[in-house]
Amino acid sequence: MSPPNTPVPDTDLSPTLQLARALIRRRSVTPEDAGCQDLMIERLQALGFAVERLRFGAVDNFWAQRGDDGPLLAFAGHTDVVPTGPEAQWQTPPFAAELEDGLLKGRGAADMKGSLAAMVTACERFVAQHPDHRGRIGFLITSDEEGPAADGTVKVVDWLEARNTKIDWCVVGEPSSTTRVGDVIKNGRRGSLGATLVIKGTQGHVAYPHLADNPIHRAAPALAALAAEVWDEGNAFFPATSFQISNINGGTGATNVIPGSVTVVCNFRFSTEVSAAQLQERTAAILARYHLDATIDWHLSGEPFLTAEGELVQAAVAAVEAQTGHKPALSTAGGTSDGRFIAPTGAQVVELGPVNATIHKVDECVAAADLDTLSCIYQDMLARLLT
Amino acid sequence: MSPPNTPVPDTDLSPTLQLARALIRRRSVTPEDAGCQDLMIERLQALGFAVERLRFGAVDNFWAQRGDDGPLLAFAGHTDVVPTGPEAQWQTPPFAAELEDGLLKGRGAADMKGSLAAMVTACERFVAQHPDHRGRIGFLITSDEEGPAADGTVKVVDWLEARNTKIDWCVVGEPSSTTRVGDVIKNGRRGSLGATLVIKGTQGHVAYPHLADNPIHRAAPALAALAAEVWDEGNAFFPATSFQISNINGGTGATNVIPGSVTVVCNFRFSTEVSAAQLQERTAAILARYHLDATIDWHLSGEPFLTAEGELVQAAVAAVEAQTGHKPALSTAGGTSDGRFIAPTGAQVVELGPVNATIHKVDECVAAADLDTLSCIYQDMLARLLT
Ligand SMILES: [Zn+2]
Ligand SMILES: [Zn+2]
Repeated sequence: MSPPNTPVPDTDLSPTLQLARALIRRRSVTPEDAGCQDLMIERLQALGFAVERLRFGAVDNFWAQRGDDGPLLAFAGHTDVVPTGPEAQWQTPPFAAELEDGLLKGRGAADMKGSLAAMVTACERFVAQHPDHRGRIGFLITSDEEGPAADGTVKVVDWLEARNTKIDWCVVGEPSSTTRVGDVIKNGRRGSLGATLVIKGTQGHVAYPHLADNPIHRAAPALAALAAEVWDEGNAFFPATSFQISNINGGTGATNVIPGSVTVVCNFRFSTEVSAAQLQERTAAILARYHLDATIDWHLSGEPFLTAEGELVQAAVAAVEAQTGHKPALSTAGGTSDGRFIAPTGAQVVELGPVNATIHKVDECVAAADLDTLSCIYQDMLARLLT
Repeated sequence: MSPPNTPVPDTDLSPTLQLARALIRRRSVTPEDAGCQDLMIERLQALGFAVERLRFGAVDNFWAQRGDDGPLLAFAGHTDVVPTGPEAQWQTPPFAAELEDGLLKGRGAADMKGSLAAMVTACERFVAQHPDHRGRIGFLITSDEEGPAADGTVKVVDWLEARNTKIDWCVVGEPSSTTRVGDVIKNGRRGSLGATLVIKGTQGHVAYPHLADNPIHRAAPALAALAAEVWDEGNAFFPATSFQISNINGGTGATNVIPGSVTVVCNFRFSTEVSAAQLQERTAAILARYHLDATIDWHLSGEPFLTAEGELVQAAVAAVEAQTGHKPALSTAGGTSDGRFIAPTGAQVVELGPVNATIHKVDECVAAADLDTLSCIYQDMLARLLT
C-alpha cells in the first residue's frame, strides 16, 4: 500500500486500470469524447478490429468489428461523462484518476470508463488465447449517452441495420452492480414515457372567482386520479408500472390572481404489461373523465425491453459465478440506458458493469480490483460465446 | 367640445376637475405621496381644518378635522396609485391628466384621486353654506393603500384610538361604481385570508419511486377536497365564501426527479358566516384527513365587515338618488379596501366612488362629469348628516 496522497504510478497497475486512468484523464464531459475513442481504437486496431468512425452531428461514435461472419457479440458503451458539479467539492480532482485505499477515483470511473477499459483488455487477453475465435466481436461506442442521446447509439444502430449487420448478443457496460461487482445483471429495462400537460382555465381575480375558471382546481382531482391509478401489476421481470409527477407550475406569482393554466410534467416507467400507446390512451381517458381542457405533449424515451433466458443471459450468469463465486440476480429496475436502442433490433441485451453507488455524484469511484474482475467476467463471456 | 389633442386648459374646468388634475400630475406611485397631501392640506386648512401630518415608516399620512365635538363623519382615501405598467401602452401619458371626449385620463383618475378632489370641493361648498355645521368632519388620508398597507390607515386608526377620536361614519372614496357613478355603494367587504402551504415529501428519482414520497401526488387529493369544499352559503349581504389557489409550484425542473416538496398559495374571500379562525381549523382538518406533512403560513388581510342599515347607509343612498335620480345597489363584492381597518373600530363604513372599470389598467380614466356628480353626492351626505 502506498501512504495517502502519494500518487500511485501507472506502472504498478494492471493494463485495465492503466487504460481506465488514461480514459478518465480525458475530460470527455458529454457530448465531448476528448480523445477517449482514439485510445480505444488504437488498442482495438492492434487486435485486428476493423474500425469505422461515425460522426453524427457533433458526436463521435465508432463501430469496431473483428471477424467476418458467425454470431456477433458486441460490447456497447459511452465515452462521455456527466458534468462534475462543483470541482471544489471533490476530495481528489475529478479528472486526476487518483488511486487511494484501493479505489480508482474520478468522473467516469464507474460510469463507464472502467467498463470500457475492462472490455478492451478482456478482448486483448481473449484474442491472444483465441486468435481464431468463432463468430465476431463488435464495439459500439458513443459519446452521446449522458446527453440527449440523439446522435449516438440510436444512429449507429440505424447505420448497422443499413449495412445489414445484426448484433446477436450485446453487453452494455453500464454500472449494473449494487454492492459487489456482478451482483446484479440487468436483462431488461422498463419503458420511459414522459408527458407535459397544460391544463387550461380562465385567468381572473380571486375576488371575482365567478369570472374565472381555476385550472389548478380543475387539475387537482384529475391528478389525484392519475396518481392513484393502478396501471398494471408488473410481471415476473418488471415491477408495476409507475407514474410520477416531477413538476407542477401554475400562477403568476401574484397572490390575488387565478392563473390561466397550470403545467404538469410527468413520467411513466412502464413494464412489458402495457404499451406506451395504451398509457397515452388511458391518460387521455382520465383527463376526459374530469372534463379538462388540456393539451398533452408526449415524449417516448423508450419502450420496455427484456432479454429472457438464452445464451447471453446464461453466459453472463455463468461468467459472474465463475469469476466471483456469487450467483448474480437478474433485474430490470433503474433508469434508461442505450440498451433501449439495441434491443428493438432483436439482439439479446444485458447490462453488466461495476457498482453504481457513486455514479453521477461528487467523488465518483470504483474499487480498483472490481475492474480487473469485470475484465475477467467479460473475457469469460467471450470464451463461453465465441469458442 | 375641444377638437382631439388640443389640451383643455384648467381654467375651463370645475374646481373638482382642476384639483383632480393637479393630483394626477403628481406621480405618487405607491408608497410615494409626491406632494398630493400638501395640496389637500392647503385646501383643508383654508377651510379651518386642524391637520396632523402622520409619517409612519416611509409613508405619509394625515388626519384633518373640522369641529370639536358631536358626530364625526370622516372621508377616507389614498393618494398613492398603482404603477403605470409600460407607459408606451398608454394612449395619453399616465400623469398628463388629459381631458378628451369628456374623460379625465391618467393613473389614479378613478382610483382614487378623482374621489379625493370631490371630497375636498364637497367640503368647500358645504362649509361655505354651513360654516357652523354640527358635529365634525374628518379626513383620513394615506399613501400606503396600494402597497403593503402596513404603515397607512391601520396606523392612523391606532393613532386615532390612542387619542380617543372615534369615527361615527366613514365614507371611503374607493371606486365602487360599475357603470354609472353611484350605481353601487359598498356597505361591507368580504374578509381575505391568505395561506402558503408547503406540502412535504421525500425527493428521489422517478426510476426509483419506492425510495421517494411524491408530495405532488400527496397534495392532489387534498387540494381537490379544498377546492370542492362548501365553506358556507353566504347570506343576504355576502356571497358564499370562496377558496382559490393562486399559485402552485413543485419540481426541480428536471423531468426525472421527484421533488421534496410542493408549495401552494391560496386565498379565502369569506363572508360573515365564517371566521378566519374557523377557516384555518377546517383547512387543517382537511389536510390532516389526507395525512399530509404540511406547514401553513396564514396571512389575514382582514375580517369581513358589514355596515347594515343606519344613518350612514341611508344618507348615502338618499344622496345618490337625489343627485343622480337612480337608486344605488348595496354590495359587499370585490377586493379588500382600507375599510377593513376602520370598520373594526365600530364606525359605520361605506365605499362610494366613481366607476371602477379601468382601475389598475392601462388608460385608466373617469368620466369628468362623474367627478362633479360625486362631489355633489358627498356634499349632500354632509348636509344630511351634519346639519
Ligand atoms: Zn452510463
Ligand atoms: Zn383604491
